[in-house]
Amino acid sequence: MPFIKIELTREGVTREQKQILIKGVTDLITNTLNKDPYLTHVRIEEVDLDNWGHAGEQVSVLREKGITADKK
Amino acid sequence: MPFIKIELTREGVTREQKQILIKGVTDLITNTLNKDPYLTHVRIEEVDLDNWGHAGEQVSVLREKGITADKK
Amino acid sequence: MPFIKIELTREGVTREQKQILIKGVTDLITNTLNKDPYLTHVRIEEVDLDNWGHAGEQVSVLREKGITADKK
Amino acid sequence: MPFIKIELTREGVTREQKQILIKGVTDLITNTLNKDPYLTHVRIEEVDLDNWGHAGEQVSVLREKGITADKK
Amino acid sequence: MPFIKIELTREGVTREQKQILIKGVTDLITNTLNKDPYLTHVRIEEVDLDNWGHAGEQVSVLREKGITADKK
Amino acid sequence: MPFIKIELTREGVTREQKQILIKGVTDLITNTLNKDPYLTHVRIEEVDLDNWGHAGEQVSVLREKGITADKK
Repeated sequence: MPFIKIELTREGVTREQKQILIKGVTDLITNTLNKDPYLTHVRIEEVDLDNWGHAGEQVSVLREKGITADKK
Repeated sequence: MPFIKIELTREGVTREQKQILIKGVTDLITNTLNKDPYLTHVRIEEVDLDNWGHAGEQVSVLREKGITADKK
Repeated sequence: MPFIKIELTREGVTREQKQILIKGVTDLITNTLNKDPYLTHVRIEEVDLDNWGHAGEQVSVLREKGITADKK
Repeated sequence: MPFIKIELTREGVTREQKQILIKGVTDLITNTLNKDPYLTHVRIEEVDLDNWGHAGEQVSVLREKGITADKK
Repeated sequence: MPFIKIELTREGVTREQKQILIKGVTDLITNTLNKDPYLTHVRIEEVDLDNWGHAGEQVSVLREKGITADKK
Repeated sequence: MPFIKIELTREGVTREQKQILIKGVTDLITNTLNKDPYLTHVRIEEVDLDNWGHAGEQVSVLREKGITADKK
């Protein structure tokens, strides 16, 4: 009975990317733990940039300063 | 001090249904556990169909295929 | 696809009370929204009294002062 | 690695108030626990008044009756 | 800034399986969304069988009846 | 009606530190938003080091390597 929640900043994640995440997480968990996928639910929650803070600063402010969360 | 969160797919739940859920959950919990209702909060969170996955598929895709979550 | 989480203080909830909550919440939600119970999950989370605060005070301290969450 | 989530009713919290909450919670936690702020994330979630219940009633109904959550 | 929470029933998940989940989810999300892994946190929460309900029944009761969540 | 949840790794947070967090978060939020503290709840959740991952690694492994989350 796994239930997975993915919280991330709302920055243009596409429907296709969401489907990749849902399929990938479900496969990973059901394969690793031998769980029935019909008992496995995944939720994605997109959070406005004003509503997420990192190191004490709003992400919207970090983005205005040119600081991204991109892989280096 | 109970706090209850109800997560469900955003598929037209009405204001009246929400009130029935809030009242029903509050009554159930405060009666079963003898808790003060003024210390009891209920939250409903409606999730877009692209953001919920079941058995590895987006619910929006399941609905397009005619697969519902309705009681049988 | 409802998923319900009940957070409450760890104060001796019995296995039978938990079953009443699980059954009651499931029936309420599936009946109100006409949802398949096999897609409905309920979680209970019991929280230590040192880890819950109300009005700025630890519940463990409130209980030492004789302040309860019982229904009046 | 603290992660903090603040859930509150959607009643006009400004961008500046959100920044005060994010900065204040981050400072409090990193100072109290001597944690690296770069490992500290804060999320704010604003909840529609129809989707929050207190004492068995929707907050939207409570507000229509003139009952607020303001400090007394 | 993704934050992922995996909730599952407490049924003997090993430390190695947890590491596979943490690594796999982090890789999937950072690769799919091009996110910095240092901003990506994963949490696993194991839930006692008395505290999880499916279709209105405690999972501990389902297990006593021989009903598992194993992949078929 | 704010509800705040603080998730952190289980690494010896004392009862006194928890009380400081509960009081501090409650004061910050009720003062910033002019909210009634009696409607404000704070929860702390301590997570085992095997159950938290950062940048794809279990925190328990990071700690064995001497990598801490301490402020620099």
